[in-house]
Amino acid sequence: MKRLGWGMIGGGEGSQIGPAHRLGARADGRFDFVAGALDHRAEIGRDYGTQLGIAPDRAYGSWQDMLAGERGREDRVDLVTVATPNATHFEITKAFLEAGFNVLCEKPMTMTVEEGEAIVEIAARSGKICAVNYCYSAYPMVRQARAMVRNGELGKIRLVVTNFSHGHHGDATDADNPRVRWRYDPAQAGISGQFADCGIHALHMASFIADDQVESLSADFASTISSRQLEDDAMVNFRMEGGAVGRLWTSSVAIGRQHGFDIQVFGETGGLRWTSEQPNQLVYTPLGRRTQIIEKGEGRLHEDAQRLSRVAIAHPEGFPLAVANIYCDLADAISGEIRDGLPLAQDGVRSMAAVHAAVASARENGAWKDARPSIFR
Amino acid sequence: MKRLGWGMIGGGEGSQIGPAHRLGARADGRFDFVAGALDHRAEIGRDYGTQLGIAPDRAYGSWQDMLAGERGREDRVDLVTVATPNATHFEITKAFLEAGFNVLCEKPMTMTVEEGEAIVEIAARSGKICAVNYCYSAYPMVRQARAMVRNGELGKIRLVVTNFSHGHHGDATDADNPRVRWRYDPAQAGISGQFADCGIHALHMASFIADDQVESLSADFASTISSRQLEDDAMVNFRMEGGAVGRLWTSSVAIGRQHGFDIQVFGETGGLRWTSEQPNQLVYTPLGRRTQIIEKGEGRLHEDAQRLSRVAIAHPEGFPLAVANIYCDLADAISGEIRDGLPLAQDGVRSMAAVHAAVASARENGAWKDARPSIFR
Amino acid sequence: MKRLGWGMIGGGEGSQIGPAHRLGARADGRFDFVAGALDHRAEIGRDYGTQLGIAPDRAYGSWQDMLAGERGREDRVDLVTVATPNATHFEITKAFLEAGFNVLCEKPMTMTVEEGEAIVEIAARSGKICAVNYCYSAYPMVRQARAMVRNGELGKIRLVVTNFSHGHHGDATDADNPRVRWRYDPAQAGISGQFADCGIHALHMASFIADDQVESLSADFASTISSRQLEDDAMVNFRMEGGAVGRLWTSSVAIGRQHGFDIQVFGETGGLRWTSEQPNQLVYTPLGRRTQIIEKGEGRLHEDAQRLSRVAIAHPEGFPLAVANIYCDLADAISGEIRDGLPLAQDGVRSMAAVHAAVASARENGAWKDARPSIFR
Amino acid sequence: MKRLGWGMIGGGEGSQIGPAHRLGARADGRFDFVAGALDHRAEIGRDYGTQLGIAPDRAYGSWQDMLAGERGREDRVDLVTVATPNATHFEITKAFLEAGFNVLCEKPMTMTVEEGEAIVEIAARSGKICAVNYCYSAYPMVRQARAMVRNGELGKIRLVVTNFSHGHHGDATDADNPRVRWRYDPAQAGISGQFADCGIHALHMASFIADDQVESLSADFASTISSRQLEDDAMVNFRMEGGAVGRLWTSSVAIGRQHGFDIQVFGETGGLRWTSEQPNQLVYTPLGRRTQIIEKGEGRLHEDAQRLSRVAIAHPEGFPLAVANIYCDLADAISGEIRDGLPLAQDGVRSMAAVHAAVASARENGAWKDARPSIFR
Repeated sequence: MKRLGWGMIGGGEGSQIGPAHRLGARADGRFDFVAGALDHRAEIGRDYGTQLGIAPDRAYGSWQDMLAGERGREDRVDLVTVATPNATHFEITKAFLEAGFNVLCEKPMTMTVEEGEAIVEIAARSGKICAVNYCYSAYPMVRQARAMVRNGELGKIRLVVTNFSHGHHGDATDADNPRVRWRYDPAQAGISGQFADCGIHALHMASFIADDQVESLSADFASTISSRQLEDDAMVNFRMEGGAVGRLWTSSVAIGRQHGFDIQVFGETGGLRWTSEQPNQLVYTPLGRRTQIIEKGEGRLHEDAQRLSRVAIAHPEGFPLAVANIYCDLADAISGEIRDGLPLAQDGVRSMAAVHAAVASARENGAWKDARPSIFR
Repeated sequence: MKRLGWGMIGGGEGSQIGPAHRLGARADGRFDFVAGALDHRAEIGRDYGTQLGIAPDRAYGSWQDMLAGERGREDRVDLVTVATPNATHFEITKAFLEAGFNVLCEKPMTMTVEEGEAIVEIAARSGKICAVNYCYSAYPMVRQARAMVRNGELGKIRLVVTNFSHGHHGDATDADNPRVRWRYDPAQAGISGQFADCGIHALHMASFIADDQVESLSADFASTISSRQLEDDAMVNFRMEGGAVGRLWTSSVAIGRQHGFDIQVFGETGGLRWTSEQPNQLVYTPLGRRTQIIEKGEGRLHEDAQRLSRVAIAHPEGFPLAVANIYCDLADAISGEIRDGLPLAQDGVRSMAAVHAAVASARENGAWKDARPSIFR
Repeated sequence: MKRLGWGMIGGGEGSQIGPAHRLGARADGRFDFVAGALDHRAEIGRDYGTQLGIAPDRAYGSWQDMLAGERGREDRVDLVTVATPNATHFEITKAFLEAGFNVLCEKPMTMTVEEGEAIVEIAARSGKICAVNYCYSAYPMVRQARAMVRNGELGKIRLVVTNFSHGHHGDATDADNPRVRWRYDPAQAGISGQFADCGIHALHMASFIADDQVESLSADFASTISSRQLEDDAMVNFRMEGGAVGRLWTSSVAIGRQHGFDIQVFGETGGLRWTSEQPNQLVYTPLGRRTQIIEKGEGRLHEDAQRLSRVAIAHPEGFPLAVANIYCDLADAISGEIRDGLPLAQDGVRSMAAVHAAVASARENGAWKDARPSIFR
Repeated sequence: MKRLGWGMIGGGEGSQIGPAHRLGARADGRFDFVAGALDHRAEIGRDYGTQLGIAPDRAYGSWQDMLAGERGREDRVDLVTVATPNATHFEITKAFLEAGFNVLCEKPMTMTVEEGEAIVEIAARSGKICAVNYCYSAYPMVRQARAMVRNGELGKIRLVVTNFSHGHHGDATDADNPRVRWRYDPAQAGISGQFADCGIHALHMASFIADDQVESLSADFASTISSRQLEDDAMVNFRMEGGAVGRLWTSSVAIGRQHGFDIQVFGETGGLRWTSEQPNQLVYTPLGRRTQIIEKGEGRLHEDAQRLSRVAIAHPEGFPLAVANIYCDLADAISGEIRDGLPLAQDGVRSMAAVHAAVASARENGAWKDARPSIFR
């Protein structure tokens, strides 16, 4: 198996997400970390890159330098990960796609729907992969859930209920902490706070497992800490194209919830439950029968779930390896085997459309809005 | 302690709720079961009553006979429980209150808000107790939760999230089963299905623990099984008078959920979680500290929680003893010691107002509605 | 259904176990509490009895008075519960059995094996029921477990693993508290501390579910708080007559365990797990298939489990209703329908033999001992 | 940070443990996988090595070739992992240590105590690191548990209770499956089956967290599937040098248990519980206070727990990253910063002494045996 070249933009020293990407890319030995522009401060970024083992000539001072440097190389990177501040995702992703690179972009892929639609179009034109890091969808048991739905094991889906709630922004006295504050400040975060931060993971998950798309939604937003301009708690009701009803609650003031990202999917002949704090099990109830525990690695899983698990049953695998699974799928995709589950630019633009629809709905007291980008209506 | 006389209307042979009330009334030995009109079929009801140990002259053939018979007795019952079909609650409760009896009415107390308001007024005028069987609020750890909120242990309440979801009506092929069908038929169930059946327990619980009242709401109803006229799944967003945000999801098609009645309450300085399938614990997280498990019987509970528990820590107590706690509070109330937690006609009419507001909102695509009866606006 | 007369010895004001028995006897309305000798202080016992509704002439000052008073009555009690200090169980139980009363004796039934054997013989001769309050075995899901084993759903049993551990005696500074100290003092507690107090519940449960008897055992006892003469922690390995291996751990210094009474049973074709803190579920894994959750009330339970549950699926029932189930079985037995699951004097004497065998083994560094009373060898 | 050179012996295609080591070594980017003798079939091993990216001249056909090849190189590997069949561990580990390589050996380190003692001596003489892969001890929350014990947060330890039980060998019809059978065949597995396979992980964990050593033990072994010569179920009671009592149960026929490796530690002032299927939490009860949930990443953990966690609170990390933590500690150790928690040859020889003591005890009906290698008596 040929090892691929990988580069990263952003994710420098002190970043949370940088190490997760590096671990994810490295874990299965399919990528070599060979290039990077890790910091907007050129010198610091170059130093950190060489410290991490990048050759000096590929430890770039800016993404523009990296683009210029890599595009000319024979051995240019096979994949670029964009882990910069949200507002810059569009510009960088666009530039690299246009130059013929495969890109993994952190979420949110863009700030507007129009930008998102542009990325979809550019990716299509370039023939390159533009993936978005909805990494929760790469947990083996999430892939199992999706496969079960596709396989008809739940019948037609009626209802999807998902939460992504935590309490880490619940301290009002901490509201001026810059690591918290920016998320509720439209100048930095855009038009939505908690829904854009966590809610879209849950919404993507709903579509992913139910194997259907969100068509319309109605939102109720609240800023429970009054100094906040953007919402720290949101409820979104939605309808999917196939007719399923959706319920999504997301909060950052749910004190005591640590990482309360859960999903339940109910169909005509069964129900499923998955929770991100115990990601290695899936709780399944076939209609009229007992609830069963499906375990990662149990040996009768669908192929995608089997493939993305590394160690034996009940040996837990966690979040960093879900990120690694995105990289596995990317390595396969770059090598020509497109995996159906890999989240792409299409997913990214759908999220942006949902964010904009939710904000508009919340402003109009919950009026129902079309949640789709115009290219998918 | 003087034992009190107790009678029951409805709850005859084969009824689910009848045995729960008899166990509840008997468990602590404060009531003697001395009178009853247990079935609308007079003979069957009388037979069953004597079988259960009621003296023949107090085993009545109808509630009207019971009213006539008991009102004239010196040793008339101290409490009448009304456990008849929903549409008859108003008439019977009204008649017994007016005749000077204390009443425990099953939920829903009435079918309309106006009837509910009438009951509140009649109860006030009569000086008698009219309680409604929101028995979940009588679990010791629910009382503990309310006491903690009142005591300021969570700070000002920001957010209440509650679910009451099960999957027992999730089988479409069972939709014609008369035990299921009537709940979704307006001719029998009234204007609401699942929200009126389970949702109002959750809404009452929200008010009860948060120690606040629901002011307004917005509802999204769905009949996920298309033959149903009334909703089998509902989401209700609400606001409380004190400003708290509320989220309530209720479903009867959540296959695999057995009795998914949970509540989470989040304030400025802490969060709580309680779930009805493990009712003897309360999960509490003070802001910035670790999550703790509060156990029934642990010895540092608030008075009300301590009083309503019978056996030592971690010896579970369940649903029938929550009903018994309602009877404990009623025995105290009849004996002159009014317990703050006992759910009363005021709670019953608030529920009806919320049901009507939710139905109106759902019909208008989620328009926000005042959820209060006019007497409480 | 004829209501039966019930009387109680011991269980006076302030007792833990007294209220549990009264609730248990009352819950299903099959017994009337008509006689009692509730306290060794005659006046206090009589007062408390009348306070609880016993007629003055049947509120006795001593068990001897009660025996004398009741044996002469036409309407004498149908059942006597003995809930006095352990050392008196034998004498009182013997006297009432010999006088032709049915008896429910608290555990331990006696202090010696010989006394236990005598009770078995007397009960047989008298034709009366002598039950012992191993109430955990009356939980519906424990009955389900036993029925599954009998029904061959686990195949031949290979292994039983059970724990009964708590931490309520873990505070060394509390070791002089008289409510704790007596349990570790041979003058008051007899030859064993924690094993005789909690361990024998677990050992009975092992026999009960595995439907087999303990044949031999090896014990390791420890007094982890050095001031204690009797063990506060014990491990007992055992073998059953049918060949199954047993492991039993019991402790009172397991700080953080509240009521850690669990059992796992493993056979050739499946495994089961039950835990007393969540008694309404049973976790079942058929060989080579997924783990399933069996719920009280689920509708496909074995008859005994179905019969002893009162409210719908996932409405929890707890410890007091397990005690009530013992009274249900007793009411049936007195009425002529002997229930197989009711724990009897035979179980009581087996426990005493096991206690004596364990103590002897522990003293000899774990030497294996026959655990059976001589009448069952 | 200089990247280190790493090589592997064994762990070829189809091996379970090979990929876990490679992932562990790669995850944090501190080792480059540069040499290997991955299979006892020379050609297959060389091919697989080059496939995994090893240069052809360092893809060796045997461990002897690798030893010869690497010892002469300037850039020789900094660490060799030995993941060959158990019976070969001693010879290979010894050879590489003597040649001046650092070694990570899979467990069991040797087959006899004498061999283990030899390794300890050789490692000391060589000044090289000889680690043993007790990887469970490298979970962040296990390190936290140990730190809490050391820090006195539980007081003097009284009791350690640990289980390592699964049911994956519970199918008697599968007993001839070669992947199962060898474990119970003395010719292949040595003198112990399940205890040597899983039990020693639990015993190491007990010592690790309690920060004390096992002094003596008494064992009860059973072959519940009669065709097995070695035990598939074992109970070991032990005493630690500091006086603590230990209980260890291990089984491979516990059908329904997947990976039931749990530990509870009880001291004078608190109790702890950790379970390998939910490794990111620790349950802690300070004496007389409520049980608390300690979360990986919570921000008030002891240094060692903090250091070995990569992603934010409640983002689970699992088994492969526990292995990676061993490699982190090894990278530090090789770089001169010895981490206290790294399991070493001393731990390996203690395990062998315990296995031999347990076998001897089981043969003598549980007679107590000194569990220490002679060098540590």
